[in-house]
Amino acid sequence: MDLLAFLNLNELSLGMSKLSMYPLFDIAHYIVSLMALKEQPGAMAVARRSPFACWFSSMLFCFGGAVLSNLLLAEPPVAPLSNDGNVLLASIIWYLVFYCPQDLVYRSAALLPIRLVLSGMKEVTRTWKVLGGVAQAQKHYKDGILVMIAVGWAKGAGGGLISNFEQLARGVWKPETNELLNMSYPTKVTLMGAVLFSLQQCQYLPLQTHHLMFIYTVFLVVNKTSMMLSGSPSWLFSPVEGAAYRVLFAEQPTDLATAATPKAPRAPGRTPSSDTCAAPKQDGRAASESQNGSAASESDGEAPTESETRGEDQTPSGVGGSKKTD
Amino acid sequence: MDLLAFLNLNELSLGMSKLSMYPLFDIAHYIVSLMALKEQPGAMAVARRSPFACWFSSMLFCFGGAVLSNLLLAEPPVAPLSNDGNVLLASIIWYLVFYCPQDLVYRSAALLPIRLVLSGMKEVTRTWKVLGGVAQAQKHYKDGILVMIAVGWAKGAGGGLISNFEQLARGVWKPETNELLNMSYPTKVTLMGAVLFSLQQCQYLPLQTHHLMFIYTVFLVVNKTSMMLSGSPSWLFSPVEGAAYRVLFAEQPTDLATAATPKAPRAPGRTPSSDTCAAPKQDGRAASESQNGSAASESDGEAPTESETRGEDQTPSGVGGSKKTD
Amino acid sequence: MDLLAFLNLNELSLGMSKLSMYPLFDIAHYIVSLMALKEQPGAMAVARRSPFACWFSSMLFCFGGAVLSNLLLAEPPVAPLSNDGNVLLASIIWYLVFYCPQDLVYRSAALLPIRLVLSGMKEVTRTWKVLGGVAQAQKHYKDGILVMIAVGWAKGAGGGLISNFEQLARGVWKPETNELLNMSYPTKVTLMGAVLFSLQQCQYLPLQTHHLMFIYTVFLVVNKTSMMLSGSPSWLFSPVEGAAYRVLFAEQPTDLATAATPKAPRAPGRTPSSDTCAAPKQDGRAASESQNGSAASESDGEAPTESETRGEDQTPSGVGGSKKTD
Repeated sequence: MDLLAFLNLNELSLGMSKLSMYPLFDIAHYIVSLMALKEQPGAMAVARRSPFACWFSSMLFCFGGAVLSNLLLAEPPVAPLSNDGNVLLASIIWYLVFYCPQDLVYRSAALLPIRLVLSGMKEVTRTWKVLGGVAQAQKHYKDGILVMIAVGWAKGAGGGLISNFEQLARGVWKPETNELLNMSYPTKVTLMGAVLFSLQQCQYLPLQTHHLMFIYTVFLVVNKTSMMLSGSPSWLFSPVEGAAYRVLFAEQPTDLATAATPKAPRAPGRTPSSDTCAAPKQDGRAASESQNGSAASESDGEAPTESETRGEDQTPSGVGGSKKTD
Repeated sequence: MDLLAFLNLNELSLGMSKLSMYPLFDIAHYIVSLMALKEQPGAMAVARRSPFACWFSSMLFCFGGAVLSNLLLAEPPVAPLSNDGNVLLASIIWYLVFYCPQDLVYRSAALLPIRLVLSGMKEVTRTWKVLGGVAQAQKHYKDGILVMIAVGWAKGAGGGLISNFEQLARGVWKPETNELLNMSYPTKVTLMGAVLFSLQQCQYLPLQTHHLMFIYTVFLVVNKTSMMLSGSPSWLFSPVEGAAYRVLFAEQPTDLATAATPKAPRAPGRTPSSDTCAAPKQDGRAASESQNGSAASESDGEAPTESETRGEDQTPSGVGGSKKTD
Repeated sequence: MDLLAFLNLNELSLGMSKLSMYPLFDIAHYIVSLMALKEQPGAMAVARRSPFACWFSSMLFCFGGAVLSNLLLAEPPVAPLSNDGNVLLASIIWYLVFYCPQDLVYRSAALLPIRLVLSGMKEVTRTWKVLGGVAQAQKHYKDGILVMIAVGWAKGAGGGLISNFEQLARGVWKPETNELLNMSYPTKVTLMGAVLFSLQQCQYLPLQTHHLMFIYTVFLVVNKTSMMLSGSPSWLFSPVEGAAYRVLFAEQPTDLATAATPKAPRAPGRTPSSDTCAAPKQDGRAASESQNGSAASESDGEAPTESETRGEDQTPSGVGGSKKTD
């Protein structure tokens, strides 16, 4: 990493890698996560109706990654509760975010500059969680790179991946949508991180751990901040994804048809098949959302400015968009 | 415990703490649990249609606590099956309750005096299960009082806590209701017991284990019996719960508004916000119940006299009730 | 096993028991399983919309048994991912089955002779999986025959047993149907195998392991082939099941009624009670299927010729059928 050395960032990254997440960064993570929960439609009604269900759901938002990664590795999913300090901290913040008189805490934290700082700090915890998950998996499966990716991803984006069951605790059930069918930005970026850290830990990447931590963290924070400031989804790799999708997964026109009518509108011929599939799903989703009185959920604890990223961001639509530019 | 010594109860409680649950008390637990399952709407149809699904569901009713507590501690959830005697006993009782000619077994056990005795004996097993769960958790996390509470609660009230998934085995899915959103009496009383036993095991309570077992068991049996005899929900701590709810979680009127109109009907102003939240939920619940052809479920294996406790017993309604007395 | 010795099959069975499933038989298992997934209504739409959800669902189809049996024994459910070779193989076949240009792979494999061979080979893997599950359970619970049956069954028929959750990954939710309520042929035959192998491992059967493997495998392959060729469900044990059901679980007419009107149409008197239960369920199922745009699912990775076996094959209907022949 001559570049990093040149920029004299070696020591900075080494110092950063020794940062303790507890308590400051963890607090930021809890605040941002619980604000995202509070912003879910129907969440406040549950908070009034059953504080306990709200607390349980909040703990899944805050510790979902640890719960899921422990489940995957057959370690006790109840383990996060054994960390009294963190649970106490998360519970206090839960109380302040949901029940503070005048809603002071939520309103203060929702001010853009404060939210920006908190969201940035939350993104820092993501690096630590992904790396923690990868290392945890490596203890069980020394060379199991796929297991390392899966567990790192689960630990970093657990809240989103188990959102169906977190919602169930609040009495909401939306089977037609999940993070696998329709990945949100945090889920994608965490998967990317899990792949990078797994490759690095298996020494397929010519990088030291703290360098990768530094690069990935900076990428996360910059990306998140610019998304919040611009208010638009700026998932850098959309073009790459779209291209990969078109090459690997799109329906290929038959050779005969291409040969016979090379300029015929094959693309429209293709579109309906995928659109007709997608349309009823999305209708169903909209219908169920209005039934449940709740719109798209953000279970990974993200700012609402991202809730618009889904839908636009999903691969087939991305492809549809790029088709128009063909 | 001078009081206990004074009453010469020390030896009694010590003797009681050495009682074996197997087989008599376990039999009572299985009978009462399976009668509660049989009383669920649609259960008999499933029993005729698919005896295997009915058996599986019955085992979840009888051993749900052990399954859930094992899951939480990453011990094999299939472990209860390794106890041949208990499974055989539960299976025989399942057969007799569901398929006995003339329904003799169910009808006999449903006679009030017999049911009273059986329900009392079932409550005794609750003490053993809660304590068992707390001790099981303590083996994994020596000082993890939160883990001990969680596992003790799971072991004592597991059937209720996993009721969504137990129902799924029978083809019933009611996501809008669960024991977290709307705690039933057995779930609450088990949580209380789990807290007490965890405090005692961590030596925060000046009590010996067998004293606490005695006190808690007597409380359970007396409370249960009086509820069954009076037919009314007599959850002793409703006023405490209501007060705690009002102090901690109720929407506080804004200071300005209070100052300006101290005698204005703020409560009605508050009520709609919580009522409008609750109303559609409850409508939805009613609707889905009529669709599923099933009413409120009693998955912890309780007598039907308790099914009315829910709804009245839930905290916000309790608050609503106490508001009227303001 | 003098008969086997007489037929000189001893060596054949011993040789067969040493067969390696990897890679040929595993490939057949993956191809047949993934073709069954592709034939599920809506699966191709998901494959276009979200290749990742499709891949995840495919892995559950291919490795569901290992995931479920690990969950039951508190071993890491993520373990199948640590076997890089198998995951790579399954992923390649997933890609070829779903996205091959001109759908060449699927169309070739769907030709009857090829499908026949592949399905036969897939059935061979079932023997290995059931025995593997039984042995895996025996390591944890030496004499726990019920645990051995449960885990052997889970490992052999896991894809079917977890189908509710596999479907959830694809955004489909059909709570009103599951393999417990309505066992399909592969689930039943696997349960039978799990019972046989568990009895054999506990030495209740006078058979050597490789003899039982041989007999069970031949039974599986012959039965499967004849079912595919005849296109009809030929579950050999339907009469036994029906008889057992009538003796054990059917509603018995009251003695008085029988005495008074021995020739009165009791059966019709009985039928409504079970029909009225079944009818709304089935209506509900049909309705939800048309909503979801999907018909009966085949989650164990079976050929579509079997999808008709369900419904006809379920016990109560079987009883209804045999009633007519009374």
